[in-house]
Amino acid sequence: MAVYTDVAAEELAEFLRGYDIGELLSYKGIAEGVENSNYLLHTSKGSFILTLYEKRVASEDLPYFLTLMSHLAERGIRCPQPEKNRGGAVFGTLMGRPAAIINFLEGVWPRRPNVAQCAAVGEGLARLHLAGQDFPLRRANPLSVGGWRALFEQSAAGADPLQHGLHALLHAELDYLEHAWPKQLPDGVIHADLFPDNAFFLGDTLSGIIDFPFACNDILAYDVAICLNAWCFEPDHSFNVTKARAFLGGYGRERPLTTSEEDALPLLARGAALRFLLTRLVDSLNVPAGALVRPKDPLEYARKLRFHQSVDSIRDYGVTASGVVA
Amino acid sequence: MAVYTDVAAEELAEFLRGYDIGELLSYKGIAEGVENSNYLLHTSKGSFILTLYEKRVASEDLPYFLTLMSHLAERGIRCPQPEKNRGGAVFGTLMGRPAAIINFLEGVWPRRPNVAQCAAVGEGLARLHLAGQDFPLRRANPLSVGGWRALFEQSAAGADPLQHGLHALLHAELDYLEHAWPKQLPDGVIHADLFPDNAFFLGDTLSGIIDFPFACNDILAYDVAICLNAWCFEPDHSFNVTKARAFLGGYGRERPLTTSEEDALPLLARGAALRFLLTRLVDSLNVPAGALVRPKDPLEYARKLRFHQSVDSIRDYGVTASGVVA
Repeated sequence: MAVYTDVAAEELAEFLRGYDIGELLSYKGIAEGVENSNYLLHTSKGSFILTLYEKRVASEDLPYFLTLMSHLAERGIRCPQPEKNRGGAVFGTLMGRPAAIINFLEGVWPRRPNVAQCAAVGEGLARLHLAGQDFPLRRANPLSVGGWRALFEQSAAGADPLQHGLHALLHAELDYLEHAWPKQLPDGVIHADLFPDNAFFLGDTLSGIIDFPFACNDILAYDVAICLNAWCFEPDHSFNVTKARAFLGGYGRERPLTTSEEDALPLLARGAALRFLLTRLVDSLNVPAGALVRPKDPLEYARKLRFHQSVDSIRDYGVTASGVVA
Repeated sequence: MAVYTDVAAEELAEFLRGYDIGELLSYKGIAEGVENSNYLLHTSKGSFILTLYEKRVASEDLPYFLTLMSHLAERGIRCPQPEKNRGGAVFGTLMGRPAAIINFLEGVWPRRPNVAQCAAVGEGLARLHLAGQDFPLRRANPLSVGGWRALFEQSAAGADPLQHGLHALLHAELDYLEHAWPKQLPDGVIHADLFPDNAFFLGDTLSGIIDFPFACNDILAYDVAICLNAWCFEPDHSFNVTKARAFLGGYGRERPLTTSEEDALPLLARGAALRFLLTRLVDSLNVPAGALVRPKDPLEYARKLRFHQSVDSIRDYGVTASGVVA
């Protein structure tokens, strides 16, 4: 939940005079996103989301996120599209913070994604990757392999108190992945955080992909690996091979994985699991007093990491080589 | 901010099948109300608010609140109106909690109410009082004079540590009000919590009165006194006599105060100030670890109480006897 900055009606009305989106009818702070303050606006022209970017989103990165969303939307990806103000800018300043208005996407995110939804998100991710191929801006991924050692060093002391043996697991995995991480795989724009709460559905139809503050340029198949972790495990942390097959099948219908990508997928999935394990561990060790958000469980990703360590090839994810569904 | 209970899309869709309000398009937890969990729903038939009643609202009181809103709305008061489900009931059960769906009211609440808005809320409060006259259900006010001593006893030890002399102020005021509280004034349905955040405006037009969990049967002029406290002081706690005159003038145009009510208003205003001082003091001494809501400042109401103690008659609120604006 995230409404950190209270926006007064009077200030908001003034801010909206800079836009051509109609008269303000109502606005509600919404409990969505953990990095920013978000409001749902109703105006005489429709529904919009107002986002105030809090400190964790560096304002120098805003042009990347906002123009990326415009770029993807122009290419048919259903994602939020920033409204331009009367000066042509995609963000301004409200309550002392960078603030943007995006169009509202209908849809609900599935707490328990089903197989059809896994397939749909696979297709959607592949289409997003294709639509991003000609995006001109670049942003390195601070949470890829090059960023993990610093996270490990911040959190190493807290590992074994949380689970005996976790420190050794992290240490060995980090050494291995830093050595083995692939350098020649196809890259491009990735979402990097396409969890179920960032995917809206109407029924089983994907109606929107939201929340781009982690978007960056990186290995495309790493994004696939993140989704394997985020969509294909059950609440008891068991791996659901039917969902994985549906997800990878959906992806492959839009953008077939290369043989190199397929070969690398288990390793990339280990990396994705390590990334969320490390960031969750850091977050769990740094909960401020009176925090609004309960930290997510790091050990969920320790279990997923151990699962991927046991995987030999993409066949274990339910897919035969060359994208043919097993 | 208040979203205590996370509602899964799957459970919500099931719950909505009991209503004839269209297909679910989206829902967002909203940061509004402090007693309950609230969601803004978009369906194919419009916008609605879903409320899950958390433990502080006793479910035996729900029929009172919900039928009151229906009763008032039928008499032209712009307030939320509960949707009936297919069984004709105004609430059901969702995620193990009593849950109701009300229509969505457009409007924004003013952080800095202006004079015209104070006049409008005065008119609106009087119209609410008139519309409630034939409401058949009754609910005693647990937060009127009879409830204050228990609050004082819960919080007495914390008074002087907060402000030197506060304990003596509370003690003497409570003795005085218990003795002097009027028993013969006109009574009826009161909102009992009509603060600016419960009044929606479009421009200076009152577009809705929301949030009825404190509604009850009590002295009508006590509701007027609550609003004097809530609407007619500036952020520096100074009393704005122009706003008070506008508020009382607006009220009087719809429902003129009787002479007895006018005479009692300073005393009722002291009581209203004491009520919010005591509940805020109790809340500030009982902040749970990790609370989502920062407690409101009790001392704001100690200053207001002292102001009302200095008032001789309704003339000091800007109004001559018999409702004539001074």
